[in-house]
Amino acid sequence: MPTSVQATADLLRRIGLFQGLDADALAAVVQAAHIRALPAGSCYFFQGDPATQFYVLLEGRVRLTQVTAEGQQLILRFITRGEGMGIVAVLGAMVYSASAEALDACQALVWEGMAVAVLMEQYPRLALNGMRLLAQRVREFQDRLRELATERVERRVARLLLRLAHQSGHKVAGGILIDLPLSRQNLAEMIGTTLYTVSRILSQWEAQGLVETGRERVVIRRPHGLVIIADDLPGEDEPRA
Amino acid sequence: MPTSVQATADLLRRIGLFQGLDADALAAVVQAAHIRALPAGSCYFFQGDPATQFYVLLEGRVRLTQVTAEGQQLILRFITRGEGMGIVAVLGAMVYSASAEALDACQALVWEGMAVAVLMEQYPRLALNGMRLLAQRVREFQDRLRELATERVERRVARLLLRLAHQSGHKVAGGILIDLPLSRQNLAEMIGTTLYTVSRILSQWEAQGLVETGRERVVIRRPHGLVIIADDLPGEDEPRA
Repeated sequence: MPTSVQATADLLRRIGLFQGLDADALAAVVQAAHIRALPAGSCYFFQGDPATQFYVLLEGRVRLTQVTAEGQQLILRFITRGEGMGIVAVLGAMVYSASAEALDACQALVWEGMAVAVLMEQYPRLALNGMRLLAQRVREFQDRLRELATERVERRVARLLLRLAHQSGHKVAGGILIDLPLSRQNLAEMIGTTLYTVSRILSQWEAQGLVETGRERVVIRRPHGLVIIADDLPGEDEPRA
Repeated sequence: MPTSVQATADLLRRIGLFQGLDADALAAVVQAAHIRALPAGSCYFFQGDPATQFYVLLEGRVRLTQVTAEGQQLILRFITRGEGMGIVAVLGAMVYSASAEALDACQALVWEGMAVAVLMEQYPRLALNGMRLLAQRVREFQDRLRELATERVERRVARLLLRLAHQSGHKVAGGILIDLPLSRQNLAEMIGTTLYTVSRILSQWEAQGLVETGRERVVIRRPHGLVIIADDLPGEDEPRA
């Protein structure tokens, strides 16, 4: 736990789920939490386990993956600092839909789902914030579903890279580094295409100076160029029709 | 409005969002609602409009569609009797992510989103139910995303038909009628494939006696046969390896 209840409260105040709570509510929320640290490679929870605990990540990065019935692993999303995971624990009688693997040494605040449910009954603002968090997830998955169902692969790759950059990009010399361990195979799985297709597109973009890729590493050199592809805008060199 | 507050309360008690509310809470919820009837072809709300109202469908069927930037229309899901739509209206400052078109003469209970937010602060159980509703949507879209990203087309068609049958199937002579206006083009869009592929699969299944299709009409004649395809189980005639 950070040095004091106050320090933890200050931290939580910046997180969507806890916004707008008064000092009393925030103190009650902090009192109900404890800290769970995990080394890289361990899991906070596993797909299919009864969802009993809700987490807010304080340090590190977590990968949420689903394994299909055939054993194929699919990255659902990444969780970064300040994001929640396992919110369904609040609802009772549900299972985790994905496994949550720590990619670094991680620290998370953890609450018993039922304790959060009690807090939500006491401080309804917390429940409304929980709804907002879930509504944002619904939007995100709706968007990805629409992209997957209707858009050509090149746009899907561009959108995925921009989304990941938005979530966990860092400015580096020469562009924005996507600070997540992502192989080309992972990228392909996240947008429902083949390794071959992703490699072809990234090589082409690399030749055009749009991105720079290495082993599990992507730097976006010209974000505006990717936005043009993602939104299917006329390119800088193409005259508008 | 049904004949009395009591009749409406009895109806709402059977709907997930209102489960577990006491009589006082339920009465307050009913008092805040009014009825909005729409003829077939009209819309309860449009994609991109500020989300101000939340609905629970009492009669008829509603189609939620998104139009992509290119003008392609995608059916997100159907809403049937007892289901909610536009829950984001409760959160304020959001827009509807889809348009909601009445497929029949429809009746819906409608609440101002902000009035529901106030009720949720007053009756936190309502907010927890709202979270549950959104969590179920997250699951549904996660499942569809995983299917789209990883499964072969035949399984996706089988799963889609089974999901639609579960939501709005009616027993008829010779099978289960999916009671939704669905062209083969619609089916193709919902699972991200082509009209040609869907037509080829349905024709094959029709020849095998699994389904019977007509204009905007599908009857599942052997649901178990579709389950075998959806779950990739060994067929009845194939020996297990």
